[in-house]
Amino acid sequence: MQPSPDRALVIVGHGSHLNSDSAAPIMQHTAALRTRADVRALFSWVQPAFWKEEPALGDVLSMLDCREVVVVPLFISEGYFTEQVIPRELGLSGPAPYHELVDGKWVHYCEPVGTHPHMTDVVIRRARTIIGGEPVSPDETAIVIVGHGTLRNENSALATVNQVAALRARGLYSEVEAVFLDQPPFVDQVTEVVRAGEIVVVPYFIADGYHTQEDIPEDLGIAAGRGVYQNPTVVAGRRIWYSGAVGTAPEVTDLILERAREALTEPPPTALPLPPACAAQQAFVAWVETAIRERGVAEFGQIAIRRSPPGFELTHHEDAPDANLATHTGLTYAEELARLTDAGEYRPLKSAPTLRHGWRLCPLDGPGLCRAVNGFYPASIVFWHQVREGTLAIVPWHETAARQTGMFRAARQLTAQQAQDVAWACCDRSVCLKRLLWDLDAQTPLELDRGQGALVCREACSLFVSMARTVVTSERPAPTTVELSPADLESLRALFGAALVGVALDREGEVDAPLNRRRLRYLLRKIERADRG
Amino acid sequence: MQPSPDRALVIVGHGSHLNSDSAAPIMQHTAALRTRADVRALFSWVQPAFWKEEPALGDVLSMLDCREVVVVPLFISEGYFTEQVIPRELGLSGPAPYHELVDGKWVHYCEPVGTHPHMTDVVIRRARTIIGGEPVSPDETAIVIVGHGTLRNENSALATVNQVAALRARGLYSEVEAVFLDQPPFVDQVTEVVRAGEIVVVPYFIADGYHTQEDIPEDLGIAAGRGVYQNPTVVAGRRIWYSGAVGTAPEVTDLILERAREALTEPPPTALPLPPACAAQQAFVAWVETAIRERGVAEFGQIAIRRSPPGFELTHHEDAPDANLATHTGLTYAEELARLTDAGEYRPLKSAPTLRHGWRLCPLDGPGLCRAVNGFYPASIVFWHQVREGTLAIVPWHETAARQTGMFRAARQLTAQQAQDVAWACCDRSVCLKRLLWDLDAQTPLELDRGQGALVCREACSLFVSMARTVVTSERPAPTTVELSPADLESLRALFGAALVGVALDREGEVDAPLNRRRLRYLLRKIERADRG
Ligand code: SF4
Ligand code: SF4
Repeated sequence: MQPSPDRALVIVGHGSHLNSDSAAPIMQHTAALRTRADVRALFSWVQPAFWKEEPALGDVLSMLDCREVVVVPLFISEGYFTEQVIPRELGLSGPAPYHELVDGKWVHYCEPVGTHPHMTDVVIRRARTIIGGEPVSPDETAIVIVGHGTLRNENSALATVNQVAALRARGLYSEVEAVFLDQPPFVDQVTEVVRAGEIVVVPYFIADGYHTQEDIPEDLGIAAGRGVYQNPTVVAGRRIWYSGAVGTAPEVTDLILERAREALTEPPPTALPLPPACAAQQAFVAWVETAIRERGVAEFGQIAIRRSPPGFELTHHEDAPDANLATHTGLTYAEELARLTDAGEYRPLKSAPTLRHGWRLCPLDGPGLCRAVNGFYPASIVFWHQVREGTLAIVPWHETAARQTGMFRAARQLTAQQAQDVAWACCDRSVCLKRLLWDLDAQTPLELDRGQGALVCREACSLFVSMARTVVTSERPAPTTVELSPADLESLRALFGAALVGVALDREGEVDAPLNRRRLRYLLRKIERADRG
Repeated sequence: MQPSPDRALVIVGHGSHLNSDSAAPIMQHTAALRTRADVRALFSWVQPAFWKEEPALGDVLSMLDCREVVVVPLFISEGYFTEQVIPRELGLSGPAPYHELVDGKWVHYCEPVGTHPHMTDVVIRRARTIIGGEPVSPDETAIVIVGHGTLRNENSALATVNQVAALRARGLYSEVEAVFLDQPPFVDQVTEVVRAGEIVVVPYFIADGYHTQEDIPEDLGIAAGRGVYQNPTVVAGRRIWYSGAVGTAPEVTDLILERAREALTEPPPTALPLPPACAAQQAFVAWVETAIRERGVAEFGQIAIRRSPPGFELTHHEDAPDANLATHTGLTYAEELARLTDAGEYRPLKSAPTLRHGWRLCPLDGPGLCRAVNGFYPASIVFWHQVREGTLAIVPWHETAARQTGMFRAARQLTAQQAQDVAWACCDRSVCLKRLLWDLDAQTPLELDRGQGALVCREACSLFVSMARTVVTSERPAPTTVELSPADLESLRALFGAALVGVALDREGEVDAPLNRRRLRYLLRKIERADRG
């Protein structure tokens, strides 16, 4: 099953626990790259990976069946993520550009797409598209780049300012300026920073989301409703044209490939070991075939795998195989199906028991089956196999916690009791189907029903870390002591029961929202623990 | 406006906070009596009154505009309610039969209907109806009376046993026996206490409800589902016939009237004062006429009163007067409309802001208007007027509490803090529209927004007393101390917010059920108070 070429391309994005927007450009460019012949000549597979979604950066190398991997961060600038988080999570020692042997894989780590010199062309193309051609009177047309600007990372502003300089050098527009969301000059000063009557505003962001679709249009004064604006809109006597985020431009697909090509300067050392994913996939397909022979179906998480000559088909295990299901083919469908629940809600955790129904993926050959399963449950096959072989590296919580930096550093202070309660809140079968394998440390096992089944959790996921941070920071202030009668406890239990099944809860990944399921479970746990004395 | 004859008939029932069943026979006989010419010759009005519903026993005399009142308790036996509760709440000093001057009214208090000698005929008629005539072979037919039997009141069993003796004296059935819900011989022993092949079972209860429709059929072995049974049903080779509660028999209407007639032995003393309700109704109609003249409408609670020549019309104040509303006439419609919410849920508190929509009552003359308003808001007119005149007798909580006996005696132990919280839970505008006028005692005012508007509360209602009892008894065990972070409090607040608007709550009157609105409000109050420190 060794793929050819023996090389994979990984596109890294930030991802989000809250909505699909953040990952959308990653998925867009991944899909575009997967179908291109020039890409296939270089890479047998294009794999997205994320900081806040799955596959997690810490898992993505393990799941790849290639010995050589090129990692391209789809970020707007160098900074905290590209320089600290991504190398740390991937196990690399240096900042990009960089080549290193990691767990038997030859990994090339590229500079972010946003600092590629051709990004200036992307910006120009964005501006040109939005005004329907070249500016009629360049003297009367300004281009304004919107950056985030942030206290934690001055590189974000720097990337924007560099774009301003590059654009000025092209001399296409009478004025080129930058405005920012989080530092001066601010977005709402756009008509002060330039004098031209026509102003083209381009957000220098990777993804279209809350910032580009709500914050900026509102600050520009062009919003006609949530995420609604017209081009152009006259503001204070000037015509404002506003484009989508640069990261979603089709040309960015080329820049990702260009970044990847640039990295392929150092060939891999010879005689690298066969990646564990190869043996894992072989064993998985054999297991599936045996299960189908014996029981007609193999079940893995919420997926049912059946024979569909000449290969396999996948459905939700609760869907009757002969039901009238929407049939999909294609490499990216599993990942797309896994993004939303039946109700159209975003699924930040792929192992949540909320896989949507009503689809069929077929026909899939052995490698296609493995890719689809990894699309639903990233890295699940290799970890499943490593559990069977006794080779899975399990990461205790104290190691995961020690690795947290930035705003998640607070998670390090999670007490053992809090950690037990967070695990109860987050890792129960009702919220996550994974069998939990890690403990707090060698001396302190987690005391909970660890679940069962083929999906395993070898390290606390990013939702767990978010929840840990929320608990640590929210429990810092002096607590309020409430004395509850048995009747009060009965009411609270009923209230939680009703809420956890019936009430419109806050978003699954929004662990600091009051009606978040995990947060409610955590609180219920505290109350139950207090009641037990 | 002095009515003629200057005499009212009050039928007293237990009532319930939980459902309409308990009051149904009272309403049935009230409606039947109101339309009878022989009743009208004796009584200008027939008024229901209750222990657990409105009008409360403590208010019913005040609201009547007659100087002479006959009170007939529709109870199955003498006992705790007829001998203690009803006389105490009406302000009478002795048990029935009794005549006394109470607040300027000449009140006759009758013995309960259930002990009337003619009740034996009602039982026989019930039995005859259910088997479709006389028993074909009396030797083979037994009649079994079902009594409640209770530890608190042996008279309940006694009334049943007396019926058995009376039935035996008639010699119509080969065997006559009694079985009980709460004492031996029990209902499920019915085939042991008699030998006959045909068994007619008559529940000696006033109302059809949980006991007669679920408990007894199940214990008899004839239940084919909740409240479902067939006549006859063969059980252990015997044919069992089961009738409705005796209290719902149409002949009971005559017995109520007979009890009332029996009481009219002592004529009222001459020169009684005009009842306050007379002046109140006059003032109310004048106020309505002024309001209509000035603004086109008079609003009272959730009722809108408009001109509808030759009189008035009533609608829900939120219904457009020209809307397509179901038009009702007739004396009892207001009381019927007030029983259920739009969603068909039972309204134990008439002043709850849950009056149903979609009806129109018209045309009403002045007295009819007052009766309708009293149907929606019992005793509201006289109290409204007494507030204006400064003559309303306000009863502080410590007096209401001191009056509680039986299972409600525990309410006496309500602490001042608990009382404040119960008031917050029960008397807020979101649960009750009345303006609260009483305090805990002369030194201790209630600290809450007392509400406003025309409906006033001069004394804690029976729901408040129930809630007080629940709080006292449920807070007796040692409390559980829970330490809540600000985030936990935020979650709880959101949870309560969601529950109090969205979740399917327990029944309004079921104040000891976990998801009861008042109980949730009480708990929320405790938590908020703890949070304020
Ligand atoms: S940490 Fe808990 S919630 Fe996260 S993947 Fe593991 S078992 Fe699931
Ligand atoms: S005691 Fe409270 S709930 Fe009851 S009638 Fe008075 S104000 Fe309303």
